[in-house]
Amino acid sequence: MEPQPPVPGSRSPAPPRATSTRLDSYVDRYAARTAGMTASEIRALFAVASRPEVVSLAGGMPNISGLPLDVVGSAIGDLIAHHGPVALQYGSGQGDPRLREQITDVMRLEGIDAHPDDVVVTVGSQQAVDLVTRIFCDPGDVVLCEAPSYVGALGVFKAFQADVVHVEMDADGLVPAALAAAIAAVKASGRTIKFLYTIPNFHNPAGVTMSIARRAEVLDICRREEVLVLEDNPYGLLGFDSEPMRALRADEAEGVVYLGSFSKTFSPGMRVGWALAPHAVREKLVLAQESATLCPPSFSQMAVSAYLTQHDWQGQIKQMREMYRERRDAMIQALEDFMPPACTWNSPRGGFFVWVTLPPGIDAKAMLPRAVTARVAYVPGTAFFADGFGAGSMRLSFCFPTPERIREGVRRLAGVLEQETELRQMFGATGPAVAPVQLGGRSGYDGPSTEVN
Amino acid sequence: MEPQPPVPGSRSPAPPRATSTRLDSYVDRYAARTAGMTASEIRALFAVASRPEVVSLAGGMPNISGLPLDVVGSAIGDLIAHHGPVALQYGSGQGDPRLREQITDVMRLEGIDAHPDDVVVTVGSQQAVDLVTRIFCDPGDVVLCEAPSYVGALGVFKAFQADVVHVEMDADGLVPAALAAAIAAVKASGRTIKFLYTIPNFHNPAGVTMSIARRAEVLDICRREEVLVLEDNPYGLLGFDSEPMRALRADEAEGVVYLGSFSKTFSPGMRVGWALAPHAVREKLVLAQESATLCPPSFSQMAVSAYLTQHDWQGQIKQMREMYRERRDAMIQALEDFMPPACTWNSPRGGFFVWVTLPPGIDAKAMLPRAVTARVAYVPGTAFFADGFGAGSMRLSFCFPTPERIREGVRRLAGVLEQETELRQMFGATGPAVAPVQLGGRSGYDGPSTEVN
Repeated sequence: MEPQPPVPGSRSPAPPRATSTRLDSYVDRYAARTAGMTASEIRALFAVASRPEVVSLAGGMPNISGLPLDVVGSAIGDLIAHHGPVALQYGSGQGDPRLREQITDVMRLEGIDAHPDDVVVTVGSQQAVDLVTRIFCDPGDVVLCEAPSYVGALGVFKAFQADVVHVEMDADGLVPAALAAAIAAVKASGRTIKFLYTIPNFHNPAGVTMSIARRAEVLDICRREEVLVLEDNPYGLLGFDSEPMRALRADEAEGVVYLGSFSKTFSPGMRVGWALAPHAVREKLVLAQESATLCPPSFSQMAVSAYLTQHDWQGQIKQMREMYRERRDAMIQALEDFMPPACTWNSPRGGFFVWVTLPPGIDAKAMLPRAVTARVAYVPGTAFFADGFGAGSMRLSFCFPTPERIREGVRRLAGVLEQETELRQMFGATGPAVAPVQLGGRSGYDGPSTEVN
Repeated sequence: MEPQPPVPGSRSPAPPRATSTRLDSYVDRYAARTAGMTASEIRALFAVASRPEVVSLAGGMPNISGLPLDVVGSAIGDLIAHHGPVALQYGSGQGDPRLREQITDVMRLEGIDAHPDDVVVTVGSQQAVDLVTRIFCDPGDVVLCEAPSYVGALGVFKAFQADVVHVEMDADGLVPAALAAAIAAVKASGRTIKFLYTIPNFHNPAGVTMSIARRAEVLDICRREEVLVLEDNPYGLLGFDSEPMRALRADEAEGVVYLGSFSKTFSPGMRVGWALAPHAVREKLVLAQESATLCPPSFSQMAVSAYLTQHDWQGQIKQMREMYRERRDAMIQALEDFMPPACTWNSPRGGFFVWVTLPPGIDAKAMLPRAVTARVAYVPGTAFFADGFGAGSMRLSFCFPTPERIREGVRRLAGVLEQETELRQMFGATGPAVAPVQLGGRSGYDGPSTEVN
């Protein structure tokens, strides 16, 4: 996430210097959960990585340059002119009723037949993860996650003092046998599983998609074991080769909380996401939302609603898919052209991300400062594990830069890797030793199997 | 909070019937904190109270009918046209840098000299209360609150399993001796106080303002006892008779977290509030914000920023103050004209609320259904206490209805009270007995002293 530039043309007096002390006089007074809220080790580096000369393959920002600003501006102008007093006022804690209807239309594309009453609008789907975790997780409760998993969700689970247990995934997504084994192991240890957090489509960061057969198997296991499924699906409509996959929620209404978002298909700056939940859970989510914000922003909800009403949003998504496919192709081609032979990766069928596994012994986190010096950035695999795994992998995003910049970024990255390999051959390991934590049946597991290039 | 009507003119297919069961199969699986998230007992009644024939003196919705929609529309149109790709994109977790500068300009009106680096933008100041509580409160920690206090903050404290200890207030605000006694009592009991939550200006619900002398005393006590002050100030610029009061934060930077909001001075539908915090606390708040939402909405932040830049917002606030003063006057006049002699109330010098204490023996919560039947609504005092006090009082809002409707509402309320008094004289108490919980030095205390009419 890069900071925004100030609005040009606005009067901007020089701010006074900050005078407060940098020592934390509150250090002994925070809640226990606050110990789980720590700045990412790579955050400082990302400030550098946001410089224009660096090709960032790190961020997950959607490319919204294709949005029709005239349509958006006119829809919002109409909104203020005709419904200003409603759009500028407090709204329902559950979210705008008209938008919740439109959200059921969006979900219908993935086979979900839902009632607007069961939808809760959230401040991006990040807040949906936060609210679900808030209502379900006591300290020490277990959340099952794919290995690797979305860094923002792992942060929420940590902030609510839940323990993450990773479950192996492969090129077809979550491995059912591994899921069953993880559930059995956690139950045997006397701990309580609160839910399985999964991103079935175009996984962040792994790029893989859960196969149809796997979906049925995963649902069967979770039904049998009474494990709630938290299905996070921000990228589901951004498949490159086919119609949207059928959601887990389409085949299981009572056992799945489904999360969606307009951040990838329209605008992340609106911060409009949602949860579709079984009725009783939905009631709790509304109470949690009211406690957290009173209500999500009426203004941005109605702006999204107006955009959906006045624009061919499905046509717009088709254009986005083409644009992202071109970028995916540019990245895969560049990987094939430049990366050293011992690297592996997958070719995602949608979404934003490729998961790259490095030659044995290379530590992606240790290498990152050298990559940024060479003007390319990525996210080391460790960010996507709660347990220290992932050092041998990295996430590359193809969503934001142009195809040319992607190619140049991968070229630079390959150069850094070559140097790294040479240095390693001369002097041994250049970064900290990779010391994976042993967990469940996984041993040295570093992410999903990837196709060898 | 009343639900919004759907957007007229939009295509709205009849939604399918909800089919999910109303039984909660998750009842044993929620987090312990979720037990503290309960729907208000009066929520169902408020659905009825939102009917147009009911005069609602219950809600705290600002009257935004005076906002210049043409200016707002044009500012937002310019925003999309010139800065669309930024406004529609993810932003900083801390909030838009330009807006944070403008927020320091707003706070300067209350004597606060702050750096934009120490400001965190939140989804309304409700979210600021949530984030501060999240980073400070473990279950069983104590939060000191005025008696009565803001219902939305009490909900947050409950949701994070903090214990609220109320401190008496009078016509000059929080009573310093009561504060010192409460701190001593809590410390003697071995519990940990995390902060004092206070609304110094035009208190919600009590309508009172903390005097200058009291501010110094409260700060002295909190410094000496090392109690953090959470200063919630949504109404500070809405005084009717004088320039804004000097904020507690203006005289104490390290010991105060200050909360502000654009909900009452511009638009609640934007959901833009903020926290100004000591540097170390600010860092934790940003991490908590990133975990909760990734970032607050860029779009509404930049819309607020554009409004502040392009409009005479201080002139607009002056108009609002006149409008609210007229409504306050209408309410006080109507109370004097209609209410039975044993009722007391205060005359607030700003904000939205009057605190009314009923004749002995009348239970405001028990009476509410009869009031709604008589087409007038209010909030019973018990909503503003964590401990069962307040049944003999009610909060009346003068912010939203017209002066004529306010007068009519109070007339209806007086009629209900008269009937209630007559019934009581004939048959004894009509509602549940008022059984106040004993707490600290308070005994049968039901809110601040009020002037006899």
